[in-house]
Amino acid sequence: MLSRTYEGQVCSVARTLELIGERWTVLILREVFRGNRRFDQMQGALGIARNVLTARLEHLQEAGILERRRYQERPARYEYMLTEKGIDLWPVLMQMLIWGDKHLAEGGPPVYVEHRDCGGQPDEHLICDRCGEPLHARNVTRRPGPGLKAVA
Amino acid sequence: MLSRTYEGQVCSVARTLELIGERWTVLILREVFRGNRRFDQMQGALGIARNVLTARLEHLQEAGILERRRYQERPARYEYMLTEKGIDLWPVLMQMLIWGDKHLAEGGPPVYVEHRDCGGQPDEHLICDRCGEPLHARNVTRRPGPGLKAVA
Repeated sequence: MLSRTYEGQVCSVARTLELIGERWTVLILREVFRGNRRFDQMQGALGIARNVLTARLEHLQEAGILERRRYQERPARYEYMLTEKGIDLWPVLMQMLIWGDKHLAEGGPPVYVEHRDCGGQPDEHLICDRCGEPLHARNVTRRPGPGLKAVA
Repeated sequence: MLSRTYEGQVCSVARTLELIGERWTVLILREVFRGNRRFDQMQGALGIARNVLTARLEHLQEAGILERRRYQERPARYEYMLTEKGIDLWPVLMQMLIWGDKHLAEGGPPVYVEHRDCGGQPDEHLICDRCGEPLHARNVTRRPGPGLKAVA
């Protein structure tokens, strides 16, 4: 198994990677930001092996990024919520989205992220390009973009 | 070898991860942003196997994120420069840095990133917290922070 740590790196980027740098982890967080909080929703959306998803969810809980909450008693079923520490990762994911939209989305963005209040979009500083309000995880919404339709 | 791709994911975040999600890649980019553009500088700073570094640099060139430039003739020696596409990754790395500084740096930030003109620091929107100017890869500088001294 590959090591998750970067020995000798006294660096906040390296430490962040140690928590979110494993394969699939960022996409799992993307699903939770989207509201797909349940194991089966995530597994269906990502198409990954259940044992891999289980391991990643455990790491994210150990790291204090996700919290598990039971939503059904018999059989016991859990959903995964972002902690405040987890919600703080939104700008990391958004900057990856913006970069991918700019450089890797020939058919246009697969998803538009929009300011819930006015429909504006995040600029490169995650400020609404229409009304100037700072955007964060809780004041945006999503709708399908042309890049998704091109595939469908 | 682990796959680098996320099959079936029509998503700009997933596509970005396919290019920068491999182990070490983000730290290699960090070195280039720092000005450590030469193979031996990177290898020394990261302490990784030379064949791994070679493979990652090749991927980054194929992806159009780095460009190789010869700086010495005999023997031939190369340095790696960020393309514009590569420079556009600065906000991704900065958001990882900000998150790590906030959540994983008990002894304080290992590095302070500062606005070259006024010495202010990036806020969560990568705006200078002193003068309000938007920050980018070319108008910031770095100095050691308390987290680095604590280790040294």
